[in-house]
Amino acid sequence: MGRWSEFVQIKEVGPRDGLQNEKQWLSTSDKVHWINTLSESGLTEIEYSSFVHPKWVPALADAHEVGRRIKRYPNVRYSALIPNMKGLELALDAGIDGASVFMSSSETHNQKNINKSIDETYPVLEEVIHEAKEAGKHVTGYVSTVFDCPYEGKVNPEQVLRVCDRLLDAGVDDLSLGDTIGTAVPAQVDQLLGKMLKNFPGEKLIMHFHDTRGMAIANIMRSMEHGIARFDSSIGGLGGCPFAPGAAGNVATNDVLYLLNGLGIKTGIDENKLQEAALYIQSKLGKSLPSKSLAYVASQS
Amino acid sequence: MGRWSEFVQIKEVGPRDGLQNEKQWLSTSDKVHWINTLSESGLTEIEYSSFVHPKWVPALADAHEVGRRIKRYPNVRYSALIPNMKGLELALDAGIDGASVFMSSSETHNQKNINKSIDETYPVLEEVIHEAKEAGKHVTGYVSTVFDCPYEGKVNPEQVLRVCDRLLDAGVDDLSLGDTIGTAVPAQVDQLLGKMLKNFPGEKLIMHFHDTRGMAIANIMRSMEHGIARFDSSIGGLGGCPFAPGAAGNVATNDVLYLLNGLGIKTGIDENKLQEAALYIQSKLGKSLPSKSLAYVASQS
Repeated sequence: MGRWSEFVQIKEVGPRDGLQNEKQWLSTSDKVHWINTLSESGLTEIEYSSFVHPKWVPALADAHEVGRRIKRYPNVRYSALIPNMKGLELALDAGIDGASVFMSSSETHNQKNINKSIDETYPVLEEVIHEAKEAGKHVTGYVSTVFDCPYEGKVNPEQVLRVCDRLLDAGVDDLSLGDTIGTAVPAQVDQLLGKMLKNFPGEKLIMHFHDTRGMAIANIMRSMEHGIARFDSSIGGLGGCPFAPGAAGNVATNDVLYLLNGLGIKTGIDENKLQEAALYIQSKLGKSLPSKSLAYVASQS
Repeated sequence: MGRWSEFVQIKEVGPRDGLQNEKQWLSTSDKVHWINTLSESGLTEIEYSSFVHPKWVPALADAHEVGRRIKRYPNVRYSALIPNMKGLELALDAGIDGASVFMSSSETHNQKNINKSIDETYPVLEEVIHEAKEAGKHVTGYVSTVFDCPYEGKVNPEQVLRVCDRLLDAGVDDLSLGDTIGTAVPAQVDQLLGKMLKNFPGEKLIMHFHDTRGMAIANIMRSMEHGIARFDSSIGGLGGCPFAPGAAGNVATNDVLYLLNGLGIKTGIDENKLQEAALYIQSKLGKSLPSKSLAYVASQS
């Protein structure tokens, strides 16, 4: 373990992972305005929506229209969550630079989340990955519950490795490893990354922490000590997981940026613009988001 | 930097540092019940109140009565915040095992907080330390703003070292180093502890983090990697600092315990009893406390 990278890339997942759990409807125009503001902040990747069937994620039922209407900034990769070929077709029509496929490393969570066994899931994703690569898109494989499963408890890193291997073989460009229920502590990061980094280069790995127990920033710090330089986060800490009982949202982009700025790590992100996007979504949803840095800044203005 | 200690000691400061910033009055009976519950959790030190003049900290105006009425558990050190000889007299009469004296490492914060320059503060504390030691009490020296000052910005570790040296010379048993405004990131922990540990043994040092920006757990993790094994925290994350604009409360004892349990570090603390004490004070104050672990557990019950 050593010194962290000089540059860290943050992928903003608020418009997808953050919003998907919201009960209230945010209008398409508001989403578009919000995503455009995020684009102006210097973020280099934004997951703008999900092409999962609206029956499952009603808050993002306008994914296609959002994709059509957002401004495309040349330095931003616009990606979306893609469950299957139907979703990919729609996403390609709406416009994506990146396709995110997803599955769990625990059997029960995979079954509850996508209604298939792990073995039944591979062929579905493999077809999507193949077609997305054919279309020249970047493909990220989300692997959920890499530390703990809400149904099965501790997940064996061997099982995570198996899923990751299979997705890389299928052609994903990188892997996002999710602490879906936000239970991990830094020793678990050591255990998992110790194993993963023996098998894959660190550049392939993105860490995706939820902050249910307030451990996410410590886990990011720990991941950076292992050389990881890519993280998913959600503006303001917006979010949760509908299929993981009690899980809180992703770690807040604002708090991650506070950490990285404090460490002198470059991100290319303008803190003020990010605050603007956070305050916008907070006011539209009419509730305080969990980010401590955001709450602090809001209390000062 | 290396492997952390097998045992970590948490000092519960909620009844003092947590409560001192509360606008609403918590009855003496409620305080006594709450502190007794904390005592039953296995905590080995509780700062039960402050003998600063009630004009400055009205929420703790009943310090003497609280001290008289709480049950004294044999394995708990009961300490209190002591500003001067008058406060020490009252505290000794109410009953204390430990006296906590305090000052800042930044001139302006010291002036605003205790209305004296740093040089004017030493003789006041030296007399208290001397008398408390004569009375056979444990004495801890709180040093505030060891990373950043709300008025002066970055604080030079040399200045922290000077204050710590002087307090140790005066006879304090240990030092609690405070990130009073909760702005530090782990690189600042490295910088300060790198310097401190060249001068003092780690056993003398307690770290005291506020969680204004959500960095406290990462900073505790980092401190443990430097061998620090003693931390101050406040149940539920209750608190703030009246003389440090915008500062949030101490890191939540619940979140610290979640981290330590996850790492397999012993604390002797019963999580359920701690939750009971947290839910009690939350219900008495009629508001949600910031601890994420507490919020999670409360959402599940």
